[in-house]
Amino acid sequence: MKKPKYQIIIDFIKEKISKGEWAIGSQIPSQRHLARMFGVNRSTVIIALEELMADGLIEGKAGKGTVVTNNTWTLMGDHLSTNWNGNVTQGIHKASVSTVQEINETESDNRFIQLSKGELSPELFPLEEMQDIIQKVSKQLTPFGYEEPKGNIKLREAISNYLKERGIDVSPSSILVVSGALQALYLISIGLLKDKSTVFLEEPSYLYSLSVFQSAGMDLEGLPMDNKGVKVDSIYQTKETGRNILYTIPSFHNPTGILMEDRRREELMEYCIREQIPVIEDDVYRDLWMDNAPPEPLKAKDRHGNVLYIGSLSKTLSPGLRIGWLVGPEPVIDRLADLKMQLDYGSSTLSQLVAEKWLSSSLYEHHIEKVQKQLRIRRQRALEALEKYLGSVATWDVPKGSFFIWVKINPAFKVKKLFEKALSKGILINPGSIYKEKAGQFVRLSYGFASLDEIEKGIFQLSEIIKNNKG
Amino acid sequence: MKKPKYQIIIDFIKEKISKGEWAIGSQIPSQRHLARMFGVNRSTVIIALEELMADGLIEGKAGKGTVVTNNTWTLMGDHLSTNWNGNVTQGIHKASVSTVQEINETESDNRFIQLSKGELSPELFPLEEMQDIIQKVSKQLTPFGYEEPKGNIKLREAISNYLKERGIDVSPSSILVVSGALQALYLISIGLLKDKSTVFLEEPSYLYSLSVFQSAGMDLEGLPMDNKGVKVDSIYQTKETGRNILYTIPSFHNPTGILMEDRRREELMEYCIREQIPVIEDDVYRDLWMDNAPPEPLKAKDRHGNVLYIGSLSKTLSPGLRIGWLVGPEPVIDRLADLKMQLDYGSSTLSQLVAEKWLSSSLYEHHIEKVQKQLRIRRQRALEALEKYLGSVATWDVPKGSFFIWVKINPAFKVKKLFEKALSKGILINPGSIYKEKAGQFVRLSYGFASLDEIEKGIFQLSEIIKNNKG
Repeated sequence: MKKPKYQIIIDFIKEKISKGEWAIGSQIPSQRHLARMFGVNRSTVIIALEELMADGLIEGKAGKGTVVTNNTWTLMGDHLSTNWNGNVTQGIHKASVSTVQEINETESDNRFIQLSKGELSPELFPLEEMQDIIQKVSKQLTPFGYEEPKGNIKLREAISNYLKERGIDVSPSSILVVSGALQALYLISIGLLKDKSTVFLEEPSYLYSLSVFQSAGMDLEGLPMDNKGVKVDSIYQTKETGRNILYTIPSFHNPTGILMEDRRREELMEYCIREQIPVIEDDVYRDLWMDNAPPEPLKAKDRHGNVLYIGSLSKTLSPGLRIGWLVGPEPVIDRLADLKMQLDYGSSTLSQLVAEKWLSSSLYEHHIEKVQKQLRIRRQRALEALEKYLGSVATWDVPKGSFFIWVKINPAFKVKKLFEKALSKGILINPGSIYKEKAGQFVRLSYGFASLDEIEKGIFQLSEIIKNNKG
Repeated sequence: MKKPKYQIIIDFIKEKISKGEWAIGSQIPSQRHLARMFGVNRSTVIIALEELMADGLIEGKAGKGTVVTNNTWTLMGDHLSTNWNGNVTQGIHKASVSTVQEINETESDNRFIQLSKGELSPELFPLEEMQDIIQKVSKQLTPFGYEEPKGNIKLREAISNYLKERGIDVSPSSILVVSGALQALYLISIGLLKDKSTVFLEEPSYLYSLSVFQSAGMDLEGLPMDNKGVKVDSIYQTKETGRNILYTIPSFHNPTGILMEDRRREELMEYCIREQIPVIEDDVYRDLWMDNAPPEPLKAKDRHGNVLYIGSLSKTLSPGLRIGWLVGPEPVIDRLADLKMQLDYGSSTLSQLVAEKWLSSSLYEHHIEKVQKQLRIRRQRALEALEKYLGSVATWDVPKGSFFIWVKINPAFKVKKLFEKALSKGILINPGSIYKEKAGQFVRLSYGFASLDEIEKGIFQLSEIIKNNKG
């Protein structure tokens, strides 16, 4: 039996729509065009279109012809809806996400000068050592299946030792291996917090450029900073205890680079313990210090199991390993380990074995020393270029670690314009707005990824853009 | 200034509680005991306890003394609450989860005979080939950072070719690399489905032993099966289209082992396209056929982008790689790739490079042939033992692929009792109840993991338990 003609048209259009070739919102060909295409009368086309309309796939719109309104997937659940992106004020979220997406796309384009990437340059990748370690892992390999819920025990022992050297004394059973710091935040957001909880955080903050807590229905409550870190007296604890948590990057804060001083850390811990506000300490930049080692982590001062501590190999070694760790009270770690098993059954065995070899040998510390040395050189080059080319139109503080400079541009020139003009000239920078910097006059420049020459060239070109577009 | 005594007691108890040494629900030492411990009057102890009560950490309970009711973390959000585990009927969920947890814990105990594990034996792990591949990956290594959102392009090309040989013609841009099939399900549950959606699925089903869809607020709606697969005429589509999805394991269904025949696959696809029910096809066992290759996947018959297809290396090669794939219409894959980036910034580069080497060489197909051969031997041994020892008290069908036998025990003997007795004798089996098998008389036996001798010994011991506990 041959298919009726109208069914052929229906199937054709459904395929176009469901394969995404005819995107939602786009206009489909006219009835006359379709009739010609399939060699049928317009009445046959109309039968087909009516069935598609009844299915909710297309819709006639005055002045716009017939438009695709759904596909089988969106019919199921408006998949870009509030359910996932809810609870964040529409304006902020949309703005930051679209800019962040634009940056993400451009970041994989090698022709750009990347002054945006929060990642070490391939020049700083320890290729030979990594190859040696992978060879060693391969030689010592035994058949492997699923890992323990909290992660490979040898890796957790190595992390425990690594943390001990940084003032944190925890047993492997209080450590959860995660696929990077972001996964740790995700697990916390869906595993420990109530809908409508409040997350206190520094403002500006890297966290504003993500949607992890907002997607889980939490509100972000920004706290002002000074050059010693977040201002503790600015925390306004609502009456209902047990609904708030504080997220902080005390060492080399992203994006400002601010290093929280030791006295401030004590104040913060005292306040949070007294007010029973649990703390998430994001310490992924700790090892990237350049002048002096930073003060002890908050976690080292934690006598009450009040701090969830996050570390990672992504910023210091390679994000491609997808290995980080989350440290906290054992019942919390148990809970989050169970959750992680429900999401992905644990992290890659190979990555865990390689991470273990790095951390349990002296190779990691040697690598860090090299990176620190290179970062000092890169910082110097960036600061010299800033002084030379942007000294008259911008101000900044010297970062003591990590690879970000938080640059304030003279208000006579709009940063939004700078971002766009720079993009068109092949230079990628991160405007402060994605971190909810309100004044709108800051950019985050990274000297971690681009080459030395690119850093200088990029900053020079930023100055040219400002010069040529003034007034 | 010295801390007041009552504060010392408060801090001590808070630490005990927050470190989890004094678990929630447990009784704390008596006032007299604490007074003696700290060398203070009972009135000082009472001051301390009153403050802890005001904080909500402890509570006096009639007849039970003072009990721990919260810690800093639970105060924040009752973290084992409905929020995560909601929307599943309390009974089923709790029962299945506690049994599943017991099984999970026992599965990492090597002294047990594992007739439960849905995983290939270490005996079938291709150690030498894996070592060679890792060596090769190491030699060809270049500095690596984050991968593309959808996963390494070479791996996606290899998956595209692999799928083409199985009748599925998709481009790499319609493929998302995931950290195993479970992550694919998780992404679908939070990225595509509305709260209160209905997931149709075979009953019994492996999916009942997870809480992925229920946690996201979906209802599961079981469909009966016969020996040709799920019964299509049993699907009762509610009026509101676009809220339902169908999950199926057409090839070597878990736990029953049923292989959906080709005609049934056609019927199912026709029905789902007509009724606009998107389909999740979980095809992770496809390559483990023993007699004949299974019929084409549903996805191969999919002309409307109606099927989300899931595959994985976990069942055929090693779950420790954490590499699987999700195939679907490009806009859906784009959406889920963006989501995955928000959860974990992508899967491990090393695992992806190793997976690519397996799939793009002939090594994978050779490995599969070896595995199939070994599975045939294992199946035979299991069937012989079943016939010999359980022939008079149980029935089963011969599985055509994968490594599960779905055994029905004579109703005179309760499976719950068999599970417990077997556990006490060091044999782990999966009772049908965790897959929502209602009759309560089924067990799932796996011949994939234990050694040949263990398989025989385990089945013999099951028969002894039944014999000795009859009547």
